[in-house]
Amino acid sequence: MTDELDFVASLAERLGSGPAGEVWAGDDAAVVRPPEGHLLLAIDPMVHGVHFLEATADVGWAAIARNVSDIAAMGGRPAHALVSLVLPAEVDVSSLLDGLVDAHRELCPIVGGDTSSGATLTVTVAVTGVVDGAPVLRSGAQPGDLLFVTGPLGAAPSRPEPRVAEGEAARRAGATAMIDVSDGLALDLRRLAAASAVGVVLDAVPVADGASWDDALTRGEDYELVFSAPDRDAVLDAFGALDPPIEIGVCTADASERRLGDGPLPEGGWEHRW
Amino acid sequence: MTDELDFVASLAERLGSGPAGEVWAGDDAAVVRPPEGHLLLAIDPMVHGVHFLEATADVGWAAIARNVSDIAAMGGRPAHALVSLVLPAEVDVSSLLDGLVDAHRELCPIVGGDTSSGATLTVTVAVTGVVDGAPVLRSGAQPGDLLFVTGPLGAAPSRPEPRVAEGEAARRAGATAMIDVSDGLALDLRRLAAASAVGVVLDAVPVADGASWDDALTRGEDYELVFSAPDRDAVLDAFGALDPPIEIGVCTADASERRLGDGPLPEGGWEHRW
Repeated sequence: MTDELDFVASLAERLGSGPAGEVWAGDDAAVVRPPEGHLLLAIDPMVHGVHFLEATADVGWAAIARNVSDIAAMGGRPAHALVSLVLPAEVDVSSLLDGLVDAHRELCPIVGGDTSSGATLTVTVAVTGVVDGAPVLRSGAQPGDLLFVTGPLGAAPSRPEPRVAEGEAARRAGATAMIDVSDGLALDLRRLAAASAVGVVLDAVPVADGASWDDALTRGEDYELVFSAPDRDAVLDAFGALDPPIEIGVCTADASERRLGDGPLPEGGWEHRW
Repeated sequence: MTDELDFVASLAERLGSGPAGEVWAGDDAAVVRPPEGHLLLAIDPMVHGVHFLEATADVGWAAIARNVSDIAAMGGRPAHALVSLVLPAEVDVSSLLDGLVDAHRELCPIVGGDTSSGATLTVTVAVTGVVDGAPVLRSGAQPGDLLFVTGPLGAAPSRPEPRVAEGEAARRAGATAMIDVSDGLALDLRRLAAASAVGVVLDAVPVADGASWDDALTRGEDYELVFSAPDRDAVLDAFGALDPPIEIGVCTADASERRLGDGPLPEGGWEHRW
């Protein structure tokens, strides 16, 4: 008990107390200012033995980053994060906490959370976000829309940078549908196409340095964004000084079409969100 | 994979699609209207082997209820819930989902979530809430304030009803500090007293039917609210037609004082939130 209290107190101290008028760690619930515009909500667990094998700092970072990426994929920006930790006895999570604190400073403030004992180390993060104007859903792609991805795929970097600025730029450019590549381009693009009831025909898959073609299509954990938009010039204009997105294909009217070059788009990927 | 997709689709269908302008399950993040006033955020895991041994409907209910109780303990009301499920292979969670759907209908709408495989069945819920005016923290109790509890303790009902209306009434009555009894009156009252830097002297502990004195002090899982307030008449007035809260003691100026009748307030309880 004392250990757990000390642990929580120490983490809360490192996270800081938030701006005046807000109450972060230490009460029954965190108190924050509500965003203007639409409120976005996402949650995502990372489970020992499934998403990671060692409780490294990168795991703490990724637990926040993958949720921030979900917010970015709506064209929004993150506001606040909550962390729930299930901690087996005698597991050293000091590195994992370091990664959470890094992400708190660089990606999204952690304003509260909870801990429990349990047999399997699990880090579940929930985030709120805000979007100016209409969020970009998965379901708005139209036949003829071009498909873009915000960067080369397959590298699964140890500290992924969620594409928040890119997601906002895509929204401003009139993106009709967007999803983040968490489970592999092939699977996530299938999700976008199914939600939008369009076909997809790819003519390019940008492969990251050191990655294979298969990595780029099915590895996931990239957290680049894939989006559809009708106007190439508007997209390049909105991205301004950001790295320009890479055009990879087009949406078609045949809702069953899933094509890569002359062949079918591979199956692959794992896991599901709702 | 197909099983998981079917599972999620089936649950999402049962949860419904939300009001016009909102997007619940099915995209990267849920889209909801932001509350007016302060935004409250809470998260809480329930872990197999720690919080429950069987995946009953009551577990699904409790996973939502304990978070709603955290919102109630701020004097707020729940707005939206997210659910993260870690599902071992071959565990039947249909009853647990029934309980989640019941809670979705009666306590707080579930607007999204995520699932993962994993070795230990874990249900983590995050909730947002809203509070009109200033939230009631744990830290505002003053010497001389009276202490109240919203009901008898120790029964640990299988379907606890979070005291949302009572928490709002306490806030309107000028409650200076409040906490929900999730880990037992003795421990939770110690938390309130420590956060407020006051002493507490109890002269009554209301024991629920079928519960023991020890249950009432240390069992927890009651989700009644304990609060401090300076004015008994204002409290009774604000509660109106609700069951009146039970006066159990007083806050004192000696911040180290923890007394029950002529003896010390017992230690006890478990787990910690932050």
